[in-house]
Amino acid sequence: MAIKFASRMKGLKGSEIRELLKLTEKPEVISFAGGLPAPELFPIEEMKKISTLVLEEDGASALQYSTTEGFEPLREHIADRMNSKSKTNITKDDILVTNGSQQGLDFAGKVFLDEGDVVLCESPSYLGALNAFKAYLPKFIEVPTDNNGMIMEELEKILSTTERIKMIYVIPDFQNPTGRTWPLERRKKFIELIEKYEIPVIEDNPYGELRFEGDNLPSLKSMDKKGLVIYLGTFSKIFCPGYRLGWTCASPAILQKFVFVKQGSDLQASTISQREVSKFMDIYDLDEHVEKIKSVYRVRRDLMLQTMKETFPEGLEYTYPEGGLFTWVELPSHLDAKEIMAKCLENDVAYVPGASFFPNGGKTNHFRLNYSNMPDDKIVEGIKRLGAVLKEFMVEKSNA
Amino acid sequence: MAIKFASRMKGLKGSEIRELLKLTEKPEVISFAGGLPAPELFPIEEMKKISTLVLEEDGASALQYSTTEGFEPLREHIADRMNSKSKTNITKDDILVTNGSQQGLDFAGKVFLDEGDVVLCESPSYLGALNAFKAYLPKFIEVPTDNNGMIMEELEKILSTTERIKMIYVIPDFQNPTGRTWPLERRKKFIELIEKYEIPVIEDNPYGELRFEGDNLPSLKSMDKKGLVIYLGTFSKIFCPGYRLGWTCASPAILQKFVFVKQGSDLQASTISQREVSKFMDIYDLDEHVEKIKSVYRVRRDLMLQTMKETFPEGLEYTYPEGGLFTWVELPSHLDAKEIMAKCLENDVAYVPGASFFPNGGKTNHFRLNYSNMPDDKIVEGIKRLGAVLKEFMVEKSNA
Repeated sequence: MAIKFASRMKGLKGSEIRELLKLTEKPEVISFAGGLPAPELFPIEEMKKISTLVLEEDGASALQYSTTEGFEPLREHIADRMNSKSKTNITKDDILVTNGSQQGLDFAGKVFLDEGDVVLCESPSYLGALNAFKAYLPKFIEVPTDNNGMIMEELEKILSTTERIKMIYVIPDFQNPTGRTWPLERRKKFIELIEKYEIPVIEDNPYGELRFEGDNLPSLKSMDKKGLVIYLGTFSKIFCPGYRLGWTCASPAILQKFVFVKQGSDLQASTISQREVSKFMDIYDLDEHVEKIKSVYRVRRDLMLQTMKETFPEGLEYTYPEGGLFTWVELPSHLDAKEIMAKCLENDVAYVPGASFFPNGGKTNHFRLNYSNMPDDKIVEGIKRLGAVLKEFMVEKSNA
Repeated sequence: MAIKFASRMKGLKGSEIRELLKLTEKPEVISFAGGLPAPELFPIEEMKKISTLVLEEDGASALQYSTTEGFEPLREHIADRMNSKSKTNITKDDILVTNGSQQGLDFAGKVFLDEGDVVLCESPSYLGALNAFKAYLPKFIEVPTDNNGMIMEELEKILSTTERIKMIYVIPDFQNPTGRTWPLERRKKFIELIEKYEIPVIEDNPYGELRFEGDNLPSLKSMDKKGLVIYLGTFSKIFCPGYRLGWTCASPAILQKFVFVKQGSDLQASTISQREVSKFMDIYDLDEHVEKIKSVYRVRRDLMLQTMKETFPEGLEYTYPEGGLFTWVELPSHLDAKEIMAKCLENDVAYVPGASFFPNGGKTNHFRLNYSNMPDDKIVEGIKRLGAVLKEFMVEKSNA
């Protein structure tokens, strides 16, 4: 067969996580592998009312094509919400509605990246973003991190010595996979640096509203005076992912490029989904709904960390997330999280090995745990199983 | 500002049609410019029932993330429907659910095209496809057409003399913009040629089911023995576009690439939209709904063509579409459809000038008329207005 695919297809594989999730679908497996929100919190009854209402009020428009930029009242809601939660000062005209924030990641790659261009990211970083960017054949440089996120001195070193840096991808709030958050001082220093070097920044913020404790921090977008920050938001974690609705907020010259790309990619986001989510925000209190989510996730985080403390062997380190969905475990450097995962599956518990979160590879002694998608009793039971497996490996290896 | 966009962004502009549509939004304008289905036919009452039902039956799953490939029962419905309507012999495993067929076009570009690769297409061809492909920086070669679509002798000449042809993009049924359909003999010859040269084909078929008269013809996909044809379908024209649901049907090795690309682009199509459209097909008769659409569009086509016959000046040619949404008008070669369009807008009637349907430019004496989106009386009135403007130009120019 003579079919030739594009060069980009060589490096493009399915997400390891999505493949792994298939193995964890058996009901007996307690899986901390996914990044799914808790479905028992979805506003099903409310959406029954809303979907009828939207079709009654203007069904013909709800089922028709509409503008590429998105449904205006929804964009207004999004702008208001960003101004209140992320301290920005924007309007609906700064917003493009996308299919989840994942689509914003793809568009960022499409808008900015030629083959061989350089993307900077936190080390480790969100696998789905790395995969989206890979389609445009960039090189990744991983900026070293510590418990407070990206290390600014390291970033500056890279910025001052590297050519063809086209964008910096960051998740400053409850990062995926580590759960870490950048403190205010680091945010300020970061903005100073990007203003100096004039590099566009993708600020991915799916979890920012899910803070369980401590003070809300201003988004990078809110500190951005030069229009360099492209902010990606989503309804997937504060509402529900099934509608596939997110947004991109950027300065006019950049947003216009995203709109062109949206047009060629799929014309527009679903008209009816946009109207339904907008109507929900008209009638119900999304803040109240987010509070409910936070109170449940907070308990789960506490349970998970408490059980880890009680049952994990000595010599492991893990992050303390002040919000979001994940904690990140570091094993002693001689252990391989993929190898341990095989044993975990035999014991009906699962996580995501950390290797694929490092775009340039080489680090195998981490894994990511999700606490949002399992009920309390399963969190305790699953972490106990995991602790037992880990003990085996730690003892085995120290005896070897 | 030092921001550098990717090279692809230089050639990427917003769709001329979408920009034009903004000018035609005034209620007094009778617009034949869009390609919108008739909203008065949308099954609003049915969807009110369906949306409640889907949330009642399994709301938690309907609002959660799901698989990249798509909702299995929907993929089964699609496969069954293709086997019955397009004479294929496929299963749900050959189907990926996308955001409209537009997303399949973008994915085709992403999967197959490196910069400088060649795409063959009908001359003229669908603007939205050309724009989607342009993001991947190909060259276009336009294959000459006549009233029966692509001319196979011309195609063979190009195939035998051109390097780096990566794909052929065609709309064999009621083409956009011309409304033309390829007869069976041409389809057979086409399949022979692509099997000889082993070139992947994108068969875009949004309108195939909307045949008002004559016999249904087999899809290229149904005649494809070598797995070269990638078939794109959509619910936008046979159901409603607001859900943004379409599909790609391809042989396993190709479909797998599309699935990887879908994952990086936006993870999956809307879970709830997929379940709603699938449930509609469980409970209601989509065939019956399509019959209703066809009977309305047929009347509109007849009215439009009849009024054109009565009011258009001599010296114009236009196609007779046996189905679909469009007819295509050719002006004498000295006339410019864009120039006439300005005058049309003054007279509150609109069409799409044909120039942008030719990817390599140079042809300005055509325009596209849509008959699906205007009620009967407006079709008559609008075509009369258009006829009057055309007469002015024909007379003016012949006196000049």
